[in-house]
Amino acid sequence: MDQILPTNPHPAETAVSPRATPAVRIDPEKLAANLSRMAAIAKSAGAELHPHVKTHKSIEIARMQIAAGASGVTASKPSEALVFVRAGLPSVTVAYPLMRAGSAAALMTAAKGSGTRLRFIAAHALHLEVLETAARQTGSVAEVFVKVDTGLGRIGVTAGSGAAAVLAGIIAGTPDLRYLGVLSHAGHAYGAPEPGRRAEIAAGELDQLHAAQAEIAPVLEMPGRISVGSTPTCLGAPVQRGTDELRPGNYAFLDLTAVRLGLCTPEEIALSVEATVLFTAPGRAVIDAGSKVLSSDKGAHGTGGDVGHGQIELQRGGQRHMLTVQRLSEEHGVVDDPEGLLAVGERVRVLPNHACAVVALAPRLWLGERELAVDARGCVD
Amino acid sequence: MDQILPTNPHPAETAVSPRATPAVRIDPEKLAANLSRMAAIAKSAGAELHPHVKTHKSIEIARMQIAAGASGVTASKPSEALVFVRAGLPSVTVAYPLMRAGSAAALMTAAKGSGTRLRFIAAHALHLEVLETAARQTGSVAEVFVKVDTGLGRIGVTAGSGAAAVLAGIIAGTPDLRYLGVLSHAGHAYGAPEPGRRAEIAAGELDQLHAAQAEIAPVLEMPGRISVGSTPTCLGAPVQRGTDELRPGNYAFLDLTAVRLGLCTPEEIALSVEATVLFTAPGRAVIDAGSKVLSSDKGAHGTGGDVGHGQIELQRGGQRHMLTVQRLSEEHGVVDDPEGLLAVGERVRVLPNHACAVVALAPRLWLGERELAVDARGCVD
Repeated sequence: MDQILPTNPHPAETAVSPRATPAVRIDPEKLAANLSRMAAIAKSAGAELHPHVKTHKSIEIARMQIAAGASGVTASKPSEALVFVRAGLPSVTVAYPLMRAGSAAALMTAAKGSGTRLRFIAAHALHLEVLETAARQTGSVAEVFVKVDTGLGRIGVTAGSGAAAVLAGIIAGTPDLRYLGVLSHAGHAYGAPEPGRRAEIAAGELDQLHAAQAEIAPVLEMPGRISVGSTPTCLGAPVQRGTDELRPGNYAFLDLTAVRLGLCTPEEIALSVEATVLFTAPGRAVIDAGSKVLSSDKGAHGTGGDVGHGQIELQRGGQRHMLTVQRLSEEHGVVDDPEGLLAVGERVRVLPNHACAVVALAPRLWLGERELAVDARGCVD
Repeated sequence: MDQILPTNPHPAETAVSPRATPAVRIDPEKLAANLSRMAAIAKSAGAELHPHVKTHKSIEIARMQIAAGASGVTASKPSEALVFVRAGLPSVTVAYPLMRAGSAAALMTAAKGSGTRLRFIAAHALHLEVLETAARQTGSVAEVFVKVDTGLGRIGVTAGSGAAAVLAGIIAGTPDLRYLGVLSHAGHAYGAPEPGRRAEIAAGELDQLHAAQAEIAPVLEMPGRISVGSTPTCLGAPVQRGTDELRPGNYAFLDLTAVRLGLCTPEEIALSVEATVLFTAPGRAVIDAGSKVLSSDKGAHGTGGDVGHGQIELQRGGQRHMLTVQRLSEEHGVVDDPEGLLAVGERVRVLPNHACAVVALAPRLWLGERELAVDARGCVD
């Protein structure tokens, strides 16, 4: 017969909790340790830290990052950036090309009120045109990095193509724009589990940024700053000499992707999803965390390959077991449990593949026992 | 040089829109057609329709479903169900086992206020215990289906195992519980692109539900209702004789998964993501829709296989082109564009792999030109 009657529970794991599940939990001590670790890396490299807030979308955690030594934060979408500008963070880098002058103008107006320094990027003449229009409308000067594609194959000019100099020429001829430097994101390092390959990517990134600077310098009479940032290169490769600032995001929480890249241990992951076992059957247990809380991400930037959808660590009789979430429906996760370790009603902690994707789906976070708003929740535009 | 200067735009696609992008858009006519089609299928089969609201999370669309002939709606998580109970829908089926008496009691109390009929499921003795506790606390009678697993391998008793009769016995001995029937979700039909295989799955589902009824009938002196529901079986297989009700969800919007299963044409998909082209490079265009709006889902229940992350239909010079979103970062989609059809600044419509996952990430929907709240947004618990 199916296992439909209660089995012997495991009291340590079934303690009553006030939280409904699934609940996205942040361990405050692990978070603090992760923030300190990156702050130390930046300090030792003589680089500023401008962490990407897409990972946590939380003003409170952004302030912890500032308190740990960060100079400001980085955001993607203008709606996300606006939340952190309004919160009065000292600097917000919008590492995303703006296509609507209205969105850019709203940011500039808010930044005047809060005293936040805004920094933008551009990789196309239209991106500069949008910033210029907004700057003129709001009586601002838009500070802008030239975005360089150093191998991810996404957005950015190619060093050596001459494009950086053309953008520099437009900036030079536009009083409402001010050149800041060159900026890149080596997201392709997520596809490089070997430390040697990551170091090559980081070194190649700097070479390309220097080459772009060399194209720009004659036009603007200055090379500008060098801004890089991806968790795999910042945590898993030497910071290159000449780097002025780092913009990693995921390092605050980390996840199984970081574990697979050798950037951390499972114990250092600060974000987990607390879930309840709903049902068991021979070989499997079903939990109340599916793709609508864990996401279907296997890694970052489409990396990940043939892995499960999360892992659950259990202690049973002094032994440590790691169970894999093998498949997901929208609201269910199916866990491989060949030994039948899990019992209906039991609570478990799932380590996710991609912490940033979990936060994007979460209505709220739990920092220890305290509820924390996802301030930039739903800021997709 | 990189293509960083504006190219000739395509005026038809670059009309100025008030919407920031990405924007999740619902075509009202396609939605209405999809709702009518399923209502006609249910009517012709003599079955009630209880559509699953997880697809749209919208009270207004739920009311359209009722207006089109549905008897009530179905929800997954208790927080999601509560939104529709409070809205006064005639019936809400919570097709998910509740593990917290407090959540169940909140639903029962709200249902008393709104006059909504609540219907629950159970596949384990603990699920019934939770419902009984809540019913006693609120002075309610909890109406409950026995959940049967007919092949998805998720939650449910197995017909023939004797488990259905044990649950029936508990229901029979508990005055606060009332038996409704047997219920299943043939989600494994998402893995069956052949209509013949889907028909087999639908027929096998009914056989197993009849077998479970036969185990229950002697205990409870009634067989109860038969409730099934998955879009692939409801749209893509004959409704089986003896089916009392259908609970499909995805049919309201449809998506590329449904197209791949042969359930609809791309033209019938009611939900699309409006996106802006941010950048182009030889062979690719980058849009402002990534995994944080399209999700990384390739299909439903982990189906999908080796497909892209969405498709863009373009008309150019009288020719129809379908471009594929080949890879996703969190906020970017990289589109294969070998002919260089897309221009920076242009707006496109992306047809997604999985409409339900898109809605779960959306801060709002656009129904035609009108903004529509995602009423059950973030209801993951």
